Amino acid sequence: MRNGDVWAFEDGGEIRGDVNGSGVVLGVDGGATSTVCVCLPLLALLSAHKLPDPLPVLARAVSGCSNHNSVGESAARNTLEQVMAEALSKSGSNRSAVRAVCLGVSGVNSSTDQERILKWIRDIFPIHVKLYVRNDAVAALASGTMGKLHGCVLIAGTGCIAYGFAEDGREARAAGAGPVLGDWGSGYGIAAQALTAVIRSHDGRGIQTMLTNSILKTLGLSSPDELIGWTYADPSWARIAALVPEVVSCAEAGDQIANEILVNAVQELALCVKAVVQRLCLCGEDGNSSFPVVMVGGVLEANKSWDIGKEVIKYIQTSYPAVHPIKPQVEPAIGAALLAWNYLMKESEEKCHR
Amino acid sequence: MRNGDVWAFEDGGEIRGDVNGSGVVLGVDGGATSTVCVCLPLLALLSAHKLPDPLPVLARAVSGCSNHNSVGESAARNTLEQVMAEALSKSGSNRSAVRAVCLGVSGVNSSTDQERILKWIRDIFPIHVKLYVRNDAVAALASGTMGKLHGCVLIAGTGCIAYGFAEDGREARAAGAGPVLGDWGSGYGIAAQALTAVIRSHDGRGIQTMLTNSILKTLGLSSPDELIGWTYADPSWARIAALVPEVVSCAEAGDQIANEILVNAVQELALCVKAVVQRLCLCGEDGNSSFPVVMVGGVLEANKSWDIGKEVIKYIQTSYPAVHPIKPQVEPAIGAALLAWNYLMKESEEKCHR
Repeated sequence: MRNGDVWAFEDGGEIRGDVNGSGVVLGVDGGATSTVCVCLPLLALLSAHKLPDPLPVLARAVSGCSNHNSVGESAARNTLEQVMAEALSKSGSNRSAVRAVCLGVSGVNSSTDQERILKWIRDIFPIHVKLYVRNDAVAALASGTMGKLHGCVLIAGTGCIAYGFAEDGREARAAGAGPVLGDWGSGYGIAAQALTAVIRSHDGRGIQTMLTNSILKTLGLSSPDELIGWTYADPSWARIAALVPEVVSCAEAGDQIANEILVNAVQELALCVKAVVQRLCLCGEDGNSSFPVVMVGGVLEANKSWDIGKEVIKYIQTSYPAVHPIKPQVEPAIGAALLAWNYLMKESEEKCHR
Repeated sequence: MRNGDVWAFEDGGEIRGDVNGSGVVLGVDGGATSTVCVCLPLLALLSAHKLPDPLPVLARAVSGCSNHNSVGESAARNTLEQVMAEALSKSGSNRSAVRAVCLGVSGVNSSTDQERILKWIRDIFPIHVKLYVRNDAVAALASGTMGKLHGCVLIAGTGCIAYGFAEDGREARAAGAGPVLGDWGSGYGIAAQALTAVIRSHDGRGIQTMLTNSILKTLGLSSPDELIGWTYADPSWARIAALVPEVVSCAEAGDQIANEILVNAVQELALCVKAVVQRLCLCGEDGNSSFPVVMVGGVLEANKSWDIGKEVIKYIQTSYPAVHPIKPQVEPAIGAALLAWNYLMKESEEKCHR
């Protein structure tokens, strides 16, 4: 066993979780800061046309980052294996009960990324277990649609991405390319524009803004000159993005520059969704069909009087009045588990019809 | 001696360079990629109201990076000491002949930075040697004005900065804050906007552009998706900035997006100069006084049919018709040496008048 004793619990333990013998599914949400795995019983899902509320989650486990771009392949692989083992152990189940696993992992941008992770997971489970690897945005979409891959998800946290599926399975994405490549609607993008506004105001290229006092106070600095050293002392995007609440506060207090930055971010985020909707023709031929837009991430969740998420929806509605905004009631790992179940059902159905 | 045997040449060698016994000055230009030191005889400079052409450069030495933010303090200090020792040795002179040293070093953004480097250099030279430490933009300005600190310099290479002096000694700068803090007129800024345009065109947020084929071909990539991996594989700003020629070529071929990016860069660079001119009132009370603007760096030097430097001047002229653009005929290290001489003369004059 390459990853220590993570599967030692399987030796001789009784099986409690898989009470009906119909097996379990695992859903994994692998993000930039943490990785979550949930274990759901297959029978409960199978037995209802409508999903039970609340969902019968057998177990939940949390571990660190599993983005191979950040922590390297070996650490990412070990994190994924460990979090799945812990969820199975906690649920009183084991690998022989697993029917399907779906992993939504950040940093999966190509089929090469997908195949590499599939290969890691293939070595862990018995051959009959169905495995699915997707970008973490796909799990986030499924968390809003309860497993159905239709519509568009918009994630705006430290980064931002829009990812969508048509009913026929076609998919498209916009943004998600990082700060150098223009994710201006992201938390990082908003905060970097605010820092820039402070520098421009200081050196005479821009008008005065409340952002100067607000940001200097938050960071404990005495002059905008010191922002240069602060910015380049640590390349972490999340450290910059953490300044978004200052921008929202200044905009709420009536600051023109902060307001412009947020208006610009709203337009950028709406443009990401519109690009996906248009390419997939989610609004139908007449442009009036309804489609879900799942809204995820700190930038969209902050429910202040300057509500970025609400403004994004308003902006999308000007083009697509029938858009149906959704705030997910479950976490992305559950979305991944529901995807695993859906993929499994689809394959069984296809088998039956052959 | 802390820095090996760099001063060993002084033991028992004859003095050839300082033929008149009036001493020499050293000028150092410490940049992000290399450090240059030149040694000039003081007499030749003293004896002429008009500077001799060509300048009697006794020696020139080149070493690596001396930006303490990049290579650390110890390496930066050793590089500076080594390059000065080499220039003195090559000139057939030694430290006892040095009257003044001026260092223009990148990364000097505060009096703390200045004092740290002064302390290093103070330990190297006899106590009577006059020492001056400035941002490398100051040496670049002096290279265009042949030592006079009046007017504004605009540097646009990988980064960009505008730095100016009024006749009364007041100084001001704009930009020079790096890519996160909005140096959009820099080579990095131009290239990052071009890469962003390729991604936006690819995912449906932007119109088609020739930049896509041009940049993918230059980088040997087959799809815009691969740009994400390429961009984050190496954080070097210079690697991104190296794409500027592709943007210029596409603009010259009539590409709308490339043209817009360059027009935007021109406006940003002109705005940097205008901010400095306005704060220092370089154009006089009536706005019609002449003042020099020294133009330095690869982005301004590229003498193509789409000439960024020429357009920047045109743009500045709309506000300040009497602006006097200068392309330096000597390198920044010579500018630093002329500054050393000017500072020295000023101090001698002040002494005489006491």
